[in-house]
Amino acid sequence: MAVFFRGSQNLLQKLKNHVSFANVSSRAMASKTPVGFIGLGNMGSHMAKNLLKHGYPVFASDIFPESCKEIQDLGAQVLDSPAEVADRADRIITMLPSSPNVIEVYTGLKGILKKVKKGSLLIDSSTIYPSVSKEMAKEAEKMGAVFMDAPVSGGVGAASSGKLTFMVGGVEEEFTAVQELLTCMGTNVVYCGEVGTGQAAKICNNMLLAISMIGTAETMNLGIRLGLDPKLLSKILNMSSGRCWSSDTYNPVPGVMEGVPSANNYQGGFGTTLMAKDLGLAQDTATNTKTAIPLGSVSHQIYRVMCARGYAQKDFSSVFQFLREEENQ
Amino acid sequence: MAVFFRGSQNLLQKLKNHVSFANVSSRAMASKTPVGFIGLGNMGSHMAKNLLKHGYPVFASDIFPESCKEIQDLGAQVLDSPAEVADRADRIITMLPSSPNVIEVYTGLKGILKKVKKGSLLIDSSTIYPSVSKEMAKEAEKMGAVFMDAPVSGGVGAASSGKLTFMVGGVEEEFTAVQELLTCMGTNVVYCGEVGTGQAAKICNNMLLAISMIGTAETMNLGIRLGLDPKLLSKILNMSSGRCWSSDTYNPVPGVMEGVPSANNYQGGFGTTLMAKDLGLAQDTATNTKTAIPLGSVSHQIYRVMCARGYAQKDFSSVFQFLREEENQ
Amino acid sequence: MAVFFRGSQNLLQKLKNHVSFANVSSRAMASKTPVGFIGLGNMGSHMAKNLLKHGYPVFASDIFPESCKEIQDLGAQVLDSPAEVADRADRIITMLPSSPNVIEVYTGLKGILKKVKKGSLLIDSSTIYPSVSKEMAKEAEKMGAVFMDAPVSGGVGAASSGKLTFMVGGVEEEFTAVQELLTCMGTNVVYCGEVGTGQAAKICNNMLLAISMIGTAETMNLGIRLGLDPKLLSKILNMSSGRCWSSDTYNPVPGVMEGVPSANNYQGGFGTTLMAKDLGLAQDTATNTKTAIPLGSVSHQIYRVMCARGYAQKDFSSVFQFLREEENQ
Amino acid sequence: MAVFFRGSQNLLQKLKNHVSFANVSSRAMASKTPVGFIGLGNMGSHMAKNLLKHGYPVFASDIFPESCKEIQDLGAQVLDSPAEVADRADRIITMLPSSPNVIEVYTGLKGILKKVKKGSLLIDSSTIYPSVSKEMAKEAEKMGAVFMDAPVSGGVGAASSGKLTFMVGGVEEEFTAVQELLTCMGTNVVYCGEVGTGQAAKICNNMLLAISMIGTAETMNLGIRLGLDPKLLSKILNMSSGRCWSSDTYNPVPGVMEGVPSANNYQGGFGTTLMAKDLGLAQDTATNTKTAIPLGSVSHQIYRVMCARGYAQKDFSSVFQFLREEENQ
Repeated sequence: MAVFFRGSQNLLQKLKNHVSFANVSSRAMASKTPVGFIGLGNMGSHMAKNLLKHGYPVFASDIFPESCKEIQDLGAQVLDSPAEVADRADRIITMLPSSPNVIEVYTGLKGILKKVKKGSLLIDSSTIYPSVSKEMAKEAEKMGAVFMDAPVSGGVGAASSGKLTFMVGGVEEEFTAVQELLTCMGTNVVYCGEVGTGQAAKICNNMLLAISMIGTAETMNLGIRLGLDPKLLSKILNMSSGRCWSSDTYNPVPGVMEGVPSANNYQGGFGTTLMAKDLGLAQDTATNTKTAIPLGSVSHQIYRVMCARGYAQKDFSSVFQFLREEENQ
Repeated sequence: MAVFFRGSQNLLQKLKNHVSFANVSSRAMASKTPVGFIGLGNMGSHMAKNLLKHGYPVFASDIFPESCKEIQDLGAQVLDSPAEVADRADRIITMLPSSPNVIEVYTGLKGILKKVKKGSLLIDSSTIYPSVSKEMAKEAEKMGAVFMDAPVSGGVGAASSGKLTFMVGGVEEEFTAVQELLTCMGTNVVYCGEVGTGQAAKICNNMLLAISMIGTAETMNLGIRLGLDPKLLSKILNMSSGRCWSSDTYNPVPGVMEGVPSANNYQGGFGTTLMAKDLGLAQDTATNTKTAIPLGSVSHQIYRVMCARGYAQKDFSSVFQFLREEENQ
Repeated sequence: MAVFFRGSQNLLQKLKNHVSFANVSSRAMASKTPVGFIGLGNMGSHMAKNLLKHGYPVFASDIFPESCKEIQDLGAQVLDSPAEVADRADRIITMLPSSPNVIEVYTGLKGILKKVKKGSLLIDSSTIYPSVSKEMAKEAEKMGAVFMDAPVSGGVGAASSGKLTFMVGGVEEEFTAVQELLTCMGTNVVYCGEVGTGQAAKICNNMLLAISMIGTAETMNLGIRLGLDPKLLSKILNMSSGRCWSSDTYNPVPGVMEGVPSANNYQGGFGTTLMAKDLGLAQDTATNTKTAIPLGSVSHQIYRVMCARGYAQKDFSSVFQFLREEENQ
Repeated sequence: MAVFFRGSQNLLQKLKNHVSFANVSSRAMASKTPVGFIGLGNMGSHMAKNLLKHGYPVFASDIFPESCKEIQDLGAQVLDSPAEVADRADRIITMLPSSPNVIEVYTGLKGILKKVKKGSLLIDSSTIYPSVSKEMAKEAEKMGAVFMDAPVSGGVGAASSGKLTFMVGGVEEEFTAVQELLTCMGTNVVYCGEVGTGQAAKICNNMLLAISMIGTAETMNLGIRLGLDPKLLSKILNMSSGRCWSSDTYNPVPGVMEGVPSANNYQGGFGTTLMAKDLGLAQDTATNTKTAIPLGSVSHQIYRVMCARGYAQKDFSSVFQFLREEENQ
């Protein structure tokens, strides 16, 4: 799995110091107060395990009993509903598939807000609409709690190894408290501004990523047709103004780089269907704010057609293959 | 003027050594054989001056007498036609506006090939169709001469300071001879492959540049609408997978960076009309090779519309301004 | 105002018969049962007047008192809230700006559903998300009422002259009852299928309209550049496979047709900002159903940029002007 | 094969009269002067046969001997080169695959212009760049001959049945003479203006056709996803402002219409690869005239990708299938 977010030396110093501190303090487990965790899917289960590893008692909940079983065996206490988690822990992390799930888990009949304690810190790491994050923050505030959005970048591999990046939106005063928990699960925790801006940052990054990936794919394709060696073209782009992450770190052309999905038949990495989902969020958000995103829109459509044509599960860099004329045409 | 091409440490070592050598050898002017130079426009006049500075006797020609006067005053000998230049010099550099000019200067009635000497080295630094470069190479070969394409990256500023980048296509055996001359005028001289690939490399780089610039502009615009601070968003992108030259070196949003056209009302830099021209070359080349370039095509159309709407002379990063809703709408 | 929807001879026969019947029955005013009308804006006020003209007693409501005053003077009885209208009339028409307004008017504290009578027929002529229509239908069903969506095509002129087209979605058994009321306000009432399909039909038509309008504009522009007379080109397209409503009925090039906005400096007609809104609905709906709409998306972006560049209030055929290079470039 | 061009009642009257006259005059074969025909491919062989049927002696030439054999058996006299045809006939029709062939056949060593007689009428029915047509006209003029461009619309079926449409560019005085010959092969002969405008008209029509076909495909697809019956949606569009040739005459959705390629698994009709070629001409022409064609460009790219993904030989309406999500994704 590729890491989609890299820390710059200067920004990370503080975080690294904090991680050292966390390691020290993790020896003194007894003193740690419990953390709630709701949503034990592919990502969430790894994240909850990393909390346990760092010595936090975890109260967990999920609608699928089998997901609960695994974490229970590792020492977490499983509860029946988000409401009960809120009754037992005043710091809760949620990791859910999409906006409607978040709404249900927070404001549903057995939702967090039914039993949330005053002063609780609620951190949502789901990737959802910024507007839903804002709505949840308002509802939490009515109950005297604080809601922050903290979507992740990095995939299942990074979740497992504790190397996620978190983009955090919400009241700045709570950021230190948020950092304490999130650094157990990730190497970068970036403060983005008021609630919803974590989502906004993630959406923006992934939209530009999609655009530059498709751009790199069609540029490499054109260059190859014009007689350029792909490795050489890639070198020229990377020392020039065409340089981008998709050309210098995650090149979509087989044979140009090692250790990226294009070197492995586009297996692993970040699936086309996930990129299409994120571009859908960008599209809706742009439509609602009346923002023109011409290349973002076309990129969205290209990934949508790719999903329809059998590329849904391949890495999103497979757009190089999709655009290229087949040999025997 | 921004430098559009940056040398990577390892590739440049050899060239730098060569430049030192050139400086040394420039003291020994007398021994240098003359160089022909045809096309004394904004770019060409600076390039010819740099040849003179490095001690090369120059035989120059241009259809505009006033362009000739200036270089004559600096020591060049002005001749009436490309044919006469070819009669006097066996290394000739051409720098012309577009494909038809190149065809005329090489194959016209008073063209280079009418009087070219066997074994002459002809270097064309114009930005034209790769197919025209190939055609000229064939015609030159018939006369026993060698034609190489060597389009530049870098603009008038880089031409003046001798910091252009050259992307060179043609027979590899002649590359050392080409380097000797071009390093008088540029810091990077990159060998790209057979004739036409210099043009191909330039076209490819500028297409990806246009795509990532528009992508950066619309991403920054969306982020701002969603409440993100542009400087912070730019930082997040640059430490992440959205990173590209347009976001980290030439950011299109006023206030994010110093010393770029966006900090100066989009004055200077690389004009929208020039980018539209280069995208036209990319488009035609892609059409002729049946290559799909969806984002390249849309980018071409966007820069075309911008030219029609008053942005022709502004730097191409002004697409940020073009896409942004005006305050009082 | 151009009529955006024209009836085909065969489909309309039944409706025309019905209109005759309506005319006859309108003489017998006394027997008519009252109709509720909520939303007295540019469109709604004309629609309510036409109901009065056809002899229906009207109970009206709007949040703006001045809108109520006018219709009151014409004989309608004005009530304080949607709830009170529902208390007095068992057939209600709503005509509101957007989805949130519809949600409020139906399900708000003083909304229709608070006092709706069992068996009531609720017809919403707003242009909103099909999903919101479906939601409202469910809520209405819980109260024993029937909700139908019936968005209009035709603009203020058609609303005033009673020549709107209605695209109706909902249970088929109620269509006759819906027709009775809607034929007072429109010439075409088309049944589209289950609830939400009226909205779907409108969104689809307007998306294809936008695409073919932009397509016509760029085609005419290209032809003119290539030396074709615009009237002649338009004739050729219209007798050929390029024919479309935008080329044969609403041509965007000044001088080709009379009586269309392009003949009047793009005044009147269907504003660019309204087209951008409808394309936003199409875009969101397509995103949510994972449907690829490449040209619909690009069209959306073009109209969005036009809104940003001063075309918001001009007719949507002004895209011809937007794409055309200015004289002195 | 679908007819891509339909005559309007009023414009055709004159032509029909002419056709009657032609039929009459065809009885008087002996009096007819010979016609040259160069290019006996899929289209050209049918066209030459129709000239023979109408009683014209034909002097034919083609680089493939087998193509010549067939027409020779039908009574044509086969000659070795275009030059020899020009030596024997003063009216010549050419029907060639692309621009380079046209240049060769007219200006090559054994080309028409080597032996063309003064006053000859040269009609080129190939689909090529308007600029090449103009160039050929200039070269012909130097020899005292007249060159006209007359590309066709209609495909092999229409070529066989003599129902092609010709779009004619060139000096107006010669149009009557052109009509006399072309009405043997087609039902519509439209005068478009100076030389090159025939090509321009064809390019423009096919570009708008491509745009509205893709637009119709995505609109129908969206409507189906939203629960609309495709036949009903098609009816609604056709009585409304979304109406276009692709929706009312050549609907791309299987089951909506009879007798179109979508009813026959997209066999027959107008191949995707041919549409891609025509869009390439539109694209290049637009680039060279600096005309913005945003939707034309995207359409070009979509048909290009379709060619790469196995749709090259299917009818161009198969874009409906291409954009639609497969069942089991």
